[in-house]
Amino acid sequence: MRAVIPYKNENAKSRLSPILSKKDREEFVELMLKDVIKALDDAEVVNIDILTTSAEGIPNDFNGNVTITEPGLNDSINEYLQNANEPILIIMADLPLVTGDHIRKIISFSEDVVIVPGKGGGTNILFIRHPNEFTVKYHDCSFISHCEITDELDKSMHIFDSFLASTDIDEPHDIVELMLHGKGQAKEYAEKRFGSETGKGRVKISHLSKLSGFV
Amino acid sequence: MRAVIPYKNENAKSRLSPILSKKDREEFVELMLKDVIKALDDAEVVNIDILTTSAEGIPNDFNGNVTITEPGLNDSINEYLQNANEPILIIMADLPLVTGDHIRKIISFSEDVVIVPGKGGGTNILFIRHPNEFTVKYHDCSFISHCEITDELDKSMHIFDSFLASTDIDEPHDIVELMLHGKGQAKEYAEKRFGSETGKGRVKISHLSKLSGFV
Repeated sequence: MRAVIPYKNENAKSRLSPILSKKDREEFVELMLKDVIKALDDAEVVNIDILTTSAEGIPNDFNGNVTITEPGLNDSINEYLQNANEPILIIMADLPLVTGDHIRKIISFSEDVVIVPGKGGGTNILFIRHPNEFTVKYHDCSFISHCEITDELDKSMHIFDSFLASTDIDEPHDIVELMLHGKGQAKEYAEKRFGSETGKGRVKISHLSKLSGFV
Repeated sequence: MRAVIPYKNENAKSRLSPILSKKDREEFVELMLKDVIKALDDAEVVNIDILTTSAEGIPNDFNGNVTITEPGLNDSINEYLQNANEPILIIMADLPLVTGDHIRKIISFSEDVVIVPGKGGGTNILFIRHPNEFTVKYHDCSFISHCEITDELDKSMHIFDSFLASTDIDEPHDIVELMLHGKGQAKEYAEKRFGSETGKGRVKISHLSKLSGFV
């Protein structure tokens, strides 16, 4: 099997702009990507590809393949799937709460397709055993689209139920979840930016931080 | 073991008022309560208590105990826990995505305390093996409070990771999750109010509904 991470660094995550500048967001998305790569490493996924429109913001120590593609998430992933000859795990780069344990479970199901929904009808992770036959359709309630595509192919499907894996970081209030439940580098960054010590060895959202209005 | 459901019907869920009238919200919260009771029934939890400030909006076919308490969620639950002499599952009434399978798993962990976090630092479900010793503290990031209380008691803790059980229905966009992932009576109600058929045997959010602005 291989994992593929679609990734955009430049001016990414514009919905976080009320609390993070462009430069900060670019730093933050790279840390989230590092957390996702670490989860894959922890699950002993050795073949990792990044699909990106520019080589900016790829971690220096990343050992996998980086493919520069034209803009267009669906087209670039579908081309990738067409050329794949082994099971493919498509995992988004904004999932810093995902762990190696989640990945191990997701790739161990026997169903043809495993879907991890994102908030609001998104698709955070897709594991596809026979990728040549599959077409992705991200955006516009992709969770429903991917269920329908799987049905139409007469493939079996497992919907993976995890709060942590379903929490993609798009908006300020998602960073609250990251601070509460995270463990990696993106969480550390958020704590430094928005946290204050509670005195009990935990970090809470500082009432002085820009995030306090979003809790 | 026993399950206890804190419940408020009258003028409940005010954050849903942009899309549901007071009367509609009262109908909707009763359906969510029915779904929670069904999940407990499915898990063969036979002793179910409802703590409520008024007998309004209790399902007619509910066979358990209804206790009318003074307002004040923490005080009424803590009094309940003080008098308990068996493990207690505290489950909120606004969890229509929770299933019998979740409940069965939650009550089967060996840890002293099992916590199902809610969005934004809430606590959706708490399973407490030794309830006399425990004090709940809902509101103001109760997830952290309950972790700290468990730590201070030197008890073991399991944090249960489920997107469905962590999705409490507070705001319009939560109803999107209910329509996408629900199976019970509250989901049916939401579909009738806000859905339209896709022609593929699925229901999508109608662009004509009040919910369309929240997707």
